[in-house]
Amino acid sequence: MNYELFMGEALAEAELALERGEPPNAAVVVVNDAMVARAHDRVQETSDPTAHAVVVALREAARRLRTARLGEATIFVTREPCPMCVGALLESDVEALVYAVPNGSDGAAGTVLQLAQYDGLPRRLRIVSGIRRDEAEELFARATAREVAP
Amino acid sequence: MNYELFMGEALAEAELALERGEPPNAAVVVVNDAMVARAHDRVQETSDPTAHAVVVALREAARRLRTARLGEATIFVTREPCPMCVGALLESDVEALVYAVPNGSDGAAGTVLQLAQYDGLPRRLRIVSGIRRDEAEELFARATAREVAP
Repeated sequence: MNYELFMGEALAEAELALERGEPPNAAVVVVNDAMVARAHDRVQETSDPTAHAVVVALREAARRLRTARLGEATIFVTREPCPMCVGALLESDVEALVYAVPNGSDGAAGTVLQLAQYDGLPRRLRIVSGIRRDEAEELFARATAREVAP
Repeated sequence: MNYELFMGEALAEAELALERGEPPNAAVVVVNDAMVARAHDRVQETSDPTAHAVVVALREAARRLRTARLGEATIFVTREPCPMCVGALLESDVEALVYAVPNGSDGAAGTVLQLAQYDGLPRRLRIVSGIRRDEAEELFARATAREVAP
């Protein structure tokens, strides 16, 4: 699978998120080398606290594939997901998580805690990190600059 | 706040879930002693892997209150929530979680792991457990009996 290519789709979606006043969190769900869902954070737009990119993308993928079990799927995200989003990946039975930048605030795939590979839980995710990290870092730096601007 | 009363609402909602072929997971969101949302699991019905009772109830509460921040809310659930659902409670800034029975499979409020009061994360939940536990256990026993029935 071409990790750089699909992460490029996530980065493009994250640009869209930034334009719309959301943080540049974006997710792309891939099954058999085909993109089945692509989404960005929509918490600001919808006031839905669960509308993180990963959750929105998983719901879209499940709707399109007509199943709650995405066992063959790999998800590409611009930033390491939070506990809710890693939990949603486990519930969806997603096989692998690929992310660009670590999340020092509440990253739940190894940075703040490791929920994606926790021995006590019934499911585990394969994790790949650092794909196109520089580009993602640049996006998050722009988001931070916007927040601190007057 | 009358914990038994609101847990009774959750138990009634869980009965409805059982009738509809879902597990008896139900959630009630309470703000200022008023019920603002009530939901049960809808994963079977909708094929949405994120449609656990807690997530459905939080989305409904946020829609009704027109905010993604439910800082004054207490949520009543029939069973200790999974990592996704505890993560969703943290994202929603919910104040307190009240549950009836522990969840030995993937309970993330103390049984399998403690995500609701994890020092490294930016938010924490107050937890009350064991409210109307016997009645909830009876519901889950009925669900298990159904699953193993021929």
